[in-house]
Amino acid sequence: MQATLPPALRALRLPLRLRLWDGQQLELGPDPRVTLDIKDPALLALLASPRLDALAGAYIDGGLDLQGPLPDVIALADQLSAAMGVADSTAPEARVAHDRQTDAEAIAYHYDLSNAFYALWLDPEMVYSCAYFPTGTEDLATAQRAKLDHLCRKLRLQPGERLLDVGCGWGGLARFAAREYGVQVTGITLSRQQLALARERVDAEGLADRVSLELMDYRDLPGDGRFDKVVSVGMFEHVGHANLGLYFRHLFDAVQPGGLVLNHGITSRYPDGRPVGRGAGEFIGRYVFPHGELPHLSTAIAQMSEQGLDVVDVESLRLHYARTLEFWSGNLEARLAEAARLVDEKTLRIWRLYLAGCAYGFRHNWINLHQILAVRPLADGSHRLPWSRADLYV
Amino acid sequence: MQATLPPALRALRLPLRLRLWDGQQLELGPDPRVTLDIKDPALLALLASPRLDALAGAYIDGGLDLQGPLPDVIALADQLSAAMGVADSTAPEARVAHDRQTDAEAIAYHYDLSNAFYALWLDPEMVYSCAYFPTGTEDLATAQRAKLDHLCRKLRLQPGERLLDVGCGWGGLARFAAREYGVQVTGITLSRQQLALARERVDAEGLADRVSLELMDYRDLPGDGRFDKVVSVGMFEHVGHANLGLYFRHLFDAVQPGGLVLNHGITSRYPDGRPVGRGAGEFIGRYVFPHGELPHLSTAIAQMSEQGLDVVDVESLRLHYARTLEFWSGNLEARLAEAARLVDEKTLRIWRLYLAGCAYGFRHNWINLHQILAVRPLADGSHRLPWSRADLYV
Repeated sequence: MQATLPPALRALRLPLRLRLWDGQQLELGPDPRVTLDIKDPALLALLASPRLDALAGAYIDGGLDLQGPLPDVIALADQLSAAMGVADSTAPEARVAHDRQTDAEAIAYHYDLSNAFYALWLDPEMVYSCAYFPTGTEDLATAQRAKLDHLCRKLRLQPGERLLDVGCGWGGLARFAAREYGVQVTGITLSRQQLALARERVDAEGLADRVSLELMDYRDLPGDGRFDKVVSVGMFEHVGHANLGLYFRHLFDAVQPGGLVLNHGITSRYPDGRPVGRGAGEFIGRYVFPHGELPHLSTAIAQMSEQGLDVVDVESLRLHYARTLEFWSGNLEARLAEAARLVDEKTLRIWRLYLAGCAYGFRHNWINLHQILAVRPLADGSHRLPWSRADLYV
Repeated sequence: MQATLPPALRALRLPLRLRLWDGQQLELGPDPRVTLDIKDPALLALLASPRLDALAGAYIDGGLDLQGPLPDVIALADQLSAAMGVADSTAPEARVAHDRQTDAEAIAYHYDLSNAFYALWLDPEMVYSCAYFPTGTEDLATAQRAKLDHLCRKLRLQPGERLLDVGCGWGGLARFAAREYGVQVTGITLSRQQLALARERVDAEGLADRVSLELMDYRDLPGDGRFDKVVSVGMFEHVGHANLGLYFRHLFDAVQPGGLVLNHGITSRYPDGRPVGRGAGEFIGRYVFPHGELPHLSTAIAQMSEQGLDVVDVESLRLHYARTLEFWSGNLEARLAEAARLVDEKTLRIWRLYLAGCAYGFRHNWINLHQILAVRPLADGSHRLPWSRADLYV
């Protein structure tokens, strides 16, 4: 058997076991924590240049099986990939044009999957974005509430203010802001599944007079500056580079002069936008977030500035997202049998890799999470934000 | 006389008086707060298209005199310029190549002017950069100490750590960090005047065993990661766009993995770097900071990322700098007679416009001030920064 394996592979020392379709096994190092089950002879060639999207694809299609704790699987796959000389792509991915139709389809693919499936591994409020761990020791539900509060504090919400939530998901932030800060919230989403559950919860909490949720494309937002504050969490990753200016123009137009815009989103490692993680970025684009495009922080800020938004505060929550995803992935791994009754086997394999892989990606600086707070300046260019950020931490 | 003035000018309603060389006067509106004394008939043409750098140039050369409180002069000059249709330039300024020689000359032009002159209007510690007003009510000296403390807190300085201060000026931060945080500071500057006074003060305070200051170009920094932390305040404005990557590479190389880099500097309004303020930017480049080039925040962040620095925290202190400059300008205006004994008349005119004009420019969002905190990641891509920024505000 060893003669059929790439020679460079045989020389590696990794705690990894390879098991072939005929039962033969090779341990690359002592005490292997992870086993790769190669069930198809055609996949041997993959081991000579194990890009992470190729490994993921083989697992999703069933030709490859993975045994071992998923975080170890991911780490060893990356070490294997690196050791075999796989590098990040040097060119940006081909991008599709984004329009209302493609965006609606891409959102439906991911977010309309199954509310019950997402409920299996998210926190009770179903907040599907990076949590905030003020001390690093909080549980997931506490950290998601802390995140919602952190956002509301950064927005300096005052009772009676009008808040627009662009990409409101299952409405966790909208309900929290209305309940805890007494604001009037308008939320928009393109996901029918999210909207249905979000409205149920708004009604159940008796918040219908303060929270209004709509199925709406950001391009259809009213541009009359009617909102005091605008927030967007985990949405701008779907907009596409070519439309980022348009997107921030809509946020600018929606907020009154002196008002705040807070964008919370995943950003890419490379300023030129080329994908990260030895194929991991391509895996996400192909299987998890079709048409997703992660801008670099600098791109987001340039586009915001071009539209007249003045960036006042940026915070990276990169390691918070690693921890959030470790919670989500751990929750899913603990409930695989239930999950298998809610989604098909292929989807479950994709989501398992996606959650564990992104935890790894954030920790290893492939991707980042930035909260970017900006103000639409008053007519004279100034603003009335507090002099310091101390009020966020009182 | 009125026949010689541009017709559009006569139609303006501004609290501005024009006085000609022959004694004739024209009041554009009631109760003029400011008088422009036009002492040279050739300058009448200037009024048809009053770019701010042209007005400034005429004042500096003596053909134009200004009567009235300087902040009003600046505001009215800008209103006049805007009303007459002067727009920002649409193309970036021509840039010169920066090398050790040009950089040393440019630094000497500004910073070697006269220590006694700067001492006239700076705070007692002679901190020549944006102060930090935690509540907006502090006096200048208090706000400068608060700024130094804010920087030290962001750097999470611990006793015994090695801090590199790139562009150390008169050593205010170096002395503060050594005294209050017990760190070992290496500071570098290209200004001989600043270095001489900075060393005097280090010796006078008995800090010579903890603060070492050198005349050194950033390109000559040791690249062996010997520092725990790196800070640069008000220096990267002199580096030049073409060298920003080189500059951040030197900061990256100077700091150990897991260490922090804090860049505090002025940033430009436009992502493409074209000058701001209807000629005001060109005035600064010609008379105040030769070879100065203000990057946009997005450019700074892109360059830091390219060099491997992970941006974790950005704070705009734009209105803090407006307030700082209002203090500086007010101090200088109150001591003009003393100032006139320390610098020549032309220099004094330049510095008066520069201080009052930049106060106006920060307030009106022509320029900004961003503190950008970044980490050089550990080998696995992670870092050990606190989970929240609450420690900055304890």
